[in-house]
Amino acid sequence: MDYPSKVLAKAVEEISGLPGIGKKSALRLALHLLKQPENIAIDLGDALQKLVIDIQYCKECHNFSDTEICDICAQEKRNDALLCIVEDVRDVMAIESTGKYRGKYLVLGGKISPMEGVGPNQLNITSIEKKLEKNVQEIIFALSATMEGDTTAYYIYKKFKNFNAKFSSIARGISVGDELEYADEISLGRSIQNRIPYDESSS
Amino acid sequence: MDYPSKVLAKAVEEISGLPGIGKKSALRLALHLLKQPENIAIDLGDALQKLVIDIQYCKECHNFSDTEICDICAQEKRNDALLCIVEDVRDVMAIESTGKYRGKYLVLGGKISPMEGVGPNQLNITSIEKKLEKNVQEIIFALSATMEGDTTAYYIYKKFKNFNAKFSSIARGISVGDELEYADEISLGRSIQNRIPYDESSS
Repeated sequence: MDYPSKVLAKAVEEISGLPGIGKKSALRLALHLLKQPENIAIDLGDALQKLVIDIQYCKECHNFSDTEICDICAQEKRNDALLCIVEDVRDVMAIESTGKYRGKYLVLGGKISPMEGVGPNQLNITSIEKKLEKNVQEIIFALSATMEGDTTAYYIYKKFKNFNAKFSSIARGISVGDELEYADEISLGRSIQNRIPYDESSS
Repeated sequence: MDYPSKVLAKAVEEISGLPGIGKKSALRLALHLLKQPENIAIDLGDALQKLVIDIQYCKECHNFSDTEICDICAQEKRNDALLCIVEDVRDVMAIESTGKYRGKYLVLGGKISPMEGVGPNQLNITSIEKKLEKNVQEIIFALSATMEGDTTAYYIYKKFKNFNAKFSSIARGISVGDELEYADEISLGRSIQNRIPYDESSS
């Protein structure tokens, strides 16, 4: 397409570099910004640049943080003996929003994926060892139920199984509210294999 | 949602201000930028800020332009007697890409829409009068086939019908390649009313 203005063409090119945004959507977004007060685009540009320049990572769990040690790692009430292994910040936010976990986290920063060229060395795996040497007694895998998630969990298990720690994984099964007849057979199969003792409070 | 970092929270807030992008997509885009080399986000931020600061409008047709008079208005070969009225830059690009029009354009910058609070005064309608006083002999409406598009065309027609100029509108009808049985009845009805002389070159 031939844009009538170079600044417009450049903006469309840069916006359409984002995943899931094509040239037409990018042009629509650029025209939207041009119809708004100038400061909307200025603030958006500033926020994107500050994001990549000012972002910091917690030295303990490798999650994003504004301080050297993040708010979660700094909480003294949290149980240091539990270490929940997750892929990225979204998983930490999802688990925190349940209010059911009071241990610590370790953010891998991805999962092992030969297809995308991500090997164990690109992930924050070595710091798990330091934590096992201190006081971690249980490693909890909270990774995606995909080939890559399973591979990552298996790699970490193999590497650290000689440490004196338990390994566990979040339960796979039927979601609360799901009808059995519509559940996929793998999830249903796993939920029968990994059945749990019934007690009144669980239903 | 509780973001672990203020720069991340700010970026998500600004990105999700764009139309059609919610908080979850905004977070996904922010994490994508953090995984790329730093300059991707820096360049994107620069392009957005330059867009709103450096953009210029052609003095003749009000389209975006890098110069005082845009490339289309500057072409001497173009027919000054034809003036095609469009809503925005996308329409100019769409018509130019057909290669079937050699007249000039006038970009209104929107259409009359009481629902969105856009009245005739916010559009570039007054400059049509100056062009009619010069040498424009035909006004061609190329506006959306919607209530707002029709209202805008009618307003302009009423305002300038006493000038010695023809008024026309792009043809509405059945798209090339469409099956009659699946066409909507309004388009089909208009295409019968506005039937055109048959000649061998048109099919």
